[in-house]
Amino acid sequence: MSFRDYLSEAKNIFDRLYPGNKITEIDYEGSTIIVYTKDEELFSKRDDLARQIAQELRRRIAIRPDPSIMLDEDSASKKIQELIPKDAGFQDLYFEPDTGEAVIELDEPSIVTNSDIIKEIKSQTNWSPRIVRAPPMYSRTVKEVREYLRDVKKERKEFLHNLGVKLTTPLMPGETWIRITALGGHREVGRSATLISTNNSKVLVDCGMINVNDPEQPWEEAPYLYVPEIQPFTSLDAVVLTHAHLDHSGLVPLLYKYGYEGPVYTTAPTRDLAALLQNDYVKVAHSEGHKISYESKHIREELKRTITLKYNETADITPDIRLTLYNAGHILGSAAVHLHIGEGLYNIVLSGDQKYEKTWLFNPAVNRFPRAETLMIESTYAGRDDYSYTRVEAYNTLVDVVNRTFDKHGTVLIPVFAVGRSQEVMLVLEDAYRNKLIPENTRVYLDGMIMEATAIHAAYPEYLNRELREQIMVKRANPFLSPIFHSVDTKKQRDDVIDDPDSKVILATAGMMNGGPVLEYFKALVSSENNTLAFVGYQADGTLGRRIQNGASSVTLSENGKSTKFDIKMNVENAEGFSGHSTKKQLINFIGTMQPRPQRILVNHGDGDKCYEFARLIHAKFGVETISMKNLETTRLY
Amino acid sequence: MSFRDYLSEAKNIFDRLYPGNKITEIDYEGSTIIVYTKDEELFSKRDDLARQIAQELRRRIAIRPDPSIMLDEDSASKKIQELIPKDAGFQDLYFEPDTGEAVIELDEPSIVTNSDIIKEIKSQTNWSPRIVRAPPMYSRTVKEVREYLRDVKKERKEFLHNLGVKLTTPLMPGETWIRITALGGHREVGRSATLISTNNSKVLVDCGMINVNDPEQPWEEAPYLYVPEIQPFTSLDAVVLTHAHLDHSGLVPLLYKYGYEGPVYTTAPTRDLAALLQNDYVKVAHSEGHKISYESKHIREELKRTITLKYNETADITPDIRLTLYNAGHILGSAAVHLHIGEGLYNIVLSGDQKYEKTWLFNPAVNRFPRAETLMIESTYAGRDDYSYTRVEAYNTLVDVVNRTFDKHGTVLIPVFAVGRSQEVMLVLEDAYRNKLIPENTRVYLDGMIMEATAIHAAYPEYLNRELREQIMVKRANPFLSPIFHSVDTKKQRDDVIDDPDSKVILATAGMMNGGPVLEYFKALVSSENNTLAFVGYQADGTLGRRIQNGASSVTLSENGKSTKFDIKMNVENAEGFSGHSTKKQLINFIGTMQPRPQRILVNHGDGDKCYEFARLIHAKFGVETISMKNLETTRLY
Ligand SMILES: [Zn+2]
Ligand SMILES: [Zn+2]
Ligand SMILES: [Zn+2]
Ligand SMILES: [Zn+2]
Ligand SMILES: [Zn+2]
Repeated sequence: MSFRDYLSEAKNIFDRLYPGNKITEIDYEGSTIIVYTKDEELFSKRDDLARQIAQELRRRIAIRPDPSIMLDEDSASKKIQELIPKDAGFQDLYFEPDTGEAVIELDEPSIVTNSDIIKEIKSQTNWSPRIVRAPPMYSRTVKEVREYLRDVKKERKEFLHNLGVKLTTPLMPGETWIRITALGGHREVGRSATLISTNNSKVLVDCGMINVNDPEQPWEEAPYLYVPEIQPFTSLDAVVLTHAHLDHSGLVPLLYKYGYEGPVYTTAPTRDLAALLQNDYVKVAHSEGHKISYESKHIREELKRTITLKYNETADITPDIRLTLYNAGHILGSAAVHLHIGEGLYNIVLSGDQKYEKTWLFNPAVNRFPRAETLMIESTYAGRDDYSYTRVEAYNTLVDVVNRTFDKHGTVLIPVFAVGRSQEVMLVLEDAYRNKLIPENTRVYLDGMIMEATAIHAAYPEYLNRELREQIMVKRANPFLSPIFHSVDTKKQRDDVIDDPDSKVILATAGMMNGGPVLEYFKALVSSENNTLAFVGYQADGTLGRRIQNGASSVTLSENGKSTKFDIKMNVENAEGFSGHSTKKQLINFIGTMQPRPQRILVNHGDGDKCYEFARLIHAKFGVETISMKNLETTRLY
Repeated sequence: MSFRDYLSEAKNIFDRLYPGNKITEIDYEGSTIIVYTKDEELFSKRDDLARQIAQELRRRIAIRPDPSIMLDEDSASKKIQELIPKDAGFQDLYFEPDTGEAVIELDEPSIVTNSDIIKEIKSQTNWSPRIVRAPPMYSRTVKEVREYLRDVKKERKEFLHNLGVKLTTPLMPGETWIRITALGGHREVGRSATLISTNNSKVLVDCGMINVNDPEQPWEEAPYLYVPEIQPFTSLDAVVLTHAHLDHSGLVPLLYKYGYEGPVYTTAPTRDLAALLQNDYVKVAHSEGHKISYESKHIREELKRTITLKYNETADITPDIRLTLYNAGHILGSAAVHLHIGEGLYNIVLSGDQKYEKTWLFNPAVNRFPRAETLMIESTYAGRDDYSYTRVEAYNTLVDVVNRTFDKHGTVLIPVFAVGRSQEVMLVLEDAYRNKLIPENTRVYLDGMIMEATAIHAAYPEYLNRELREQIMVKRANPFLSPIFHSVDTKKQRDDVIDDPDSKVILATAGMMNGGPVLEYFKALVSSENNTLAFVGYQADGTLGRRIQNGASSVTLSENGKSTKFDIKMNVENAEGFSGHSTKKQLINFIGTMQPRPQRILVNHGDGDKCYEFARLIHAKFGVETISMKNLETTRLY
């Protein structure tokens, strides 16, 4: 069926099921048919009705109030704030015209939820009030993304309409085939990019970078984006983003710079975290005079076209591909990508970066899927010599490192990614502090967007594990708001921290020490053996972190614009159980207990021989076909 | 260096080595620098001088007489025919302005070669006479190709000039990589097409078809030519053709129809044979009302842009790829493709179809190469159950089949490819006849371009093995001219052969019985057990030949426009030692004695599991990495 066929069919079903409906418009937005109605009664039954129609039509349907029957946003805002009682602690209000909802953020939602105020708001404004608890921390990113999306509402609506037309394009006749092409992040860690193409469509999963900043080898930064399989970018139908780390999200804006105009599918927290990290990348590159491959306007282009899905929610993303995202346990919003191709023809799961263990932040990665013929899985820690500490060991190691360093009146420097590891280390330090396992006078400084990233976690509690979600929602119990944490937001504050002779813990980015404020602290602390550099995350080949971890006795860094050699006197310690990646054992358990067992496993996202060796290992263990593709290779799946 | 740089450098070297040269023009044609001079003395030393300059410049150079000093072709032709003595047996004369040569075909070259006539021709016309023996058989194809190329001389010169400019394009900086993409003929026999791409160039080796003529599955006819790796065709830099069989050459004209404008590199006999077979394909498809994917004008487009290489001759075909063709022993002009990529970086050998055994026609396939990191090799007969008769057994079987059938007053029908197997069967029958091993009254009818294909063999004696080359050059010894052979050229003649009740041998195309005159004979002979159908070549999956070979008791064919069932009463016999493909043992010997031993072997051109199983076998035997790619897959070689 074509676009128009679907719409008139939907109208027919509607008229049959609900005669006399006051439908004013019926249209596609993305893969969803949107029905606007002036009938308030119908509006109240919309969920049941939509489900009923969707079942007949095999398309998603949403029913929305016709804008003409609703109070304009300014008047509605005024009216709502009048109706909310003072003691409910009004914090914020925003409108979602897509659903006809007015989202009202309150400190004490229960005061309104169990009252007639809701009915009153509805009848006076015709918006449906949705009462939510005000996020416990303020995130500039969440706020700005929300405002930006409101500003581009009209363009976005048009974009979604056009996408809807494309998604109902009839399939080309002829032989069906499915291919997977490795464009980056295969047999390496960094610049992840994998293309899935069929005889009908092209979907790119991730588009990351290696943040090398080496002007002598500029081509190593990006995946192989210039090959014909993916050129021109207008030939791409969809981009799916597994998570916000720049090695997966970093070059999505580049696609828009060079002509891509389609959607990005991801979770809401990934959308926000990616915007945060991408904007920071642009800012840092500008300030350090590095070659920069896109501008912040391209990040906005991406935002404008991002379609968010919740975990386990399914959407048609091309005429022959259906997408579902599943929790991957790696960082906030991180997802495994499940692609259902054709009508029951073939299913692929791309794990993204993943952790198959319950962590202080998240539930373990999901490994049950409706179907899965092929699994692509990461192998960051699948090497022979990779350590696989438990989280208890990681906790104890970190506590021990702090105590030993403080005993010597030294300072502990911990390089972290702003997103993921920072929050876990914070939770451990706060727990240890509360349980008096580290000194009472411990102060923890957070430099490099860590607080902002933490606030984004607090804005999406449904993506955290249950214990943490409950803690966060009670202000006094929110571990991220503990008085031991101090955010470093200015150069002056940073200098003060550096000049402060007392013992302290510093969490600073970048996590692999290839840039960022961590280098300033490192240069200040490196020459005393009383201090400790503590690694809590993966250090990739070629990074400064890896070199130091490997025992370098000195390193050369730029100091006031000139190369300076620094002898490493400070202690170097590892507390690796914090990793957001599965250990080798966890990867094997993930595969061993996965349902259904895939027929073919592709291994990617591993340094050196890890992909290849892990592929051999799981072939031997499970007897399934395994492949470790090289970048620029294409494998046929069907 | 750029185009202009090379030319001025060449001029400088010239002026230094040969001051006062009368150079009138210096330009590129393809990968060769052409120098035109009015200096007749220089012209006579041209080969030495060209070699000297080529060594300094590392580019090929050819020196040609300036056209203004040469007699026009008509006057020169008249003059030359006056000067040639009657008893030399003048046959033909044509001019090659490219080299300034007048090629004179004589029955008795020695009469002129050892005389002053050569000097006389030269001084009176300024053309360099080249005396050759007149080909012993007349080939319309060779003649027409030669005439066509003369007609499009100007366009061709411009094409070669533009190609020269492209070939001197400086290389793009950046990472070097080499990929191979399977577009057809991998894990199957038919529609061979393999793409080699580097960061700088794209070369397609072969572009064949599966001649299915099934309107229900039109997409099975062609390789996967619509995928982005090879689209648009203007992005291709070069096409290399291994040999003339339509499963390798059949869709090269299609590339020109859809925009390709670059060169085809192949041997001269392959150029002519491919034109013969392609034109026949177009003619037959038209006459049978089949869907046809190109017209004869596209065959001419191909011819115009074909650049021929002799075996072992090397040419730059892109700025980073150098091509050498080596004898493959399969059919006339068949070649293995050796690609040298970068300056000593990487070498690939693509075997094409090949025979590693000396046959009645050819020397065995070459398996010594200057370097070869990767070998791609066919596996047509590499299956577990494939027979591997010796040529002596094939000879004896065929003689036996003829005698047994003639004893019963029956007729022997042999389905053959016009090119290759026909000529071998002819040589065997002629030898058996001469040695009185088959009846004295044996007549052999040849239907379906067999005589024309045979004449092309006679036109390129240097591509045949030495014994046959020598036989052909002596008119009375030329086996192809034996009185037992009778060409069937008209419908009337065919009907006469069919109505003739006497015993005879009929060689008719197509070789796998999927069309062609063989079907007419088959329908006439099938119902008598006195007759014999003798297979001498490979019958691919899905062909009528394969079905009959597998023991079908009846087949349904179109007779006077309606489907008719034919019970198979005639004997079906196999005499497979005639195959132009290596047996499994020969393939293994080819690899085992290949110098150098390749590090990686790709197996293609095999039905069913043959590619995969032969890859496993040679991996086990030689310990090298082996791959049997699927169509649509890409492997990274470097
Ligand atoms: Zn990650
Ligand atoms: Zn990653
Ligand atoms: Zn195995
Ligand atoms: Zn062949
Ligand atoms: Zn072939």
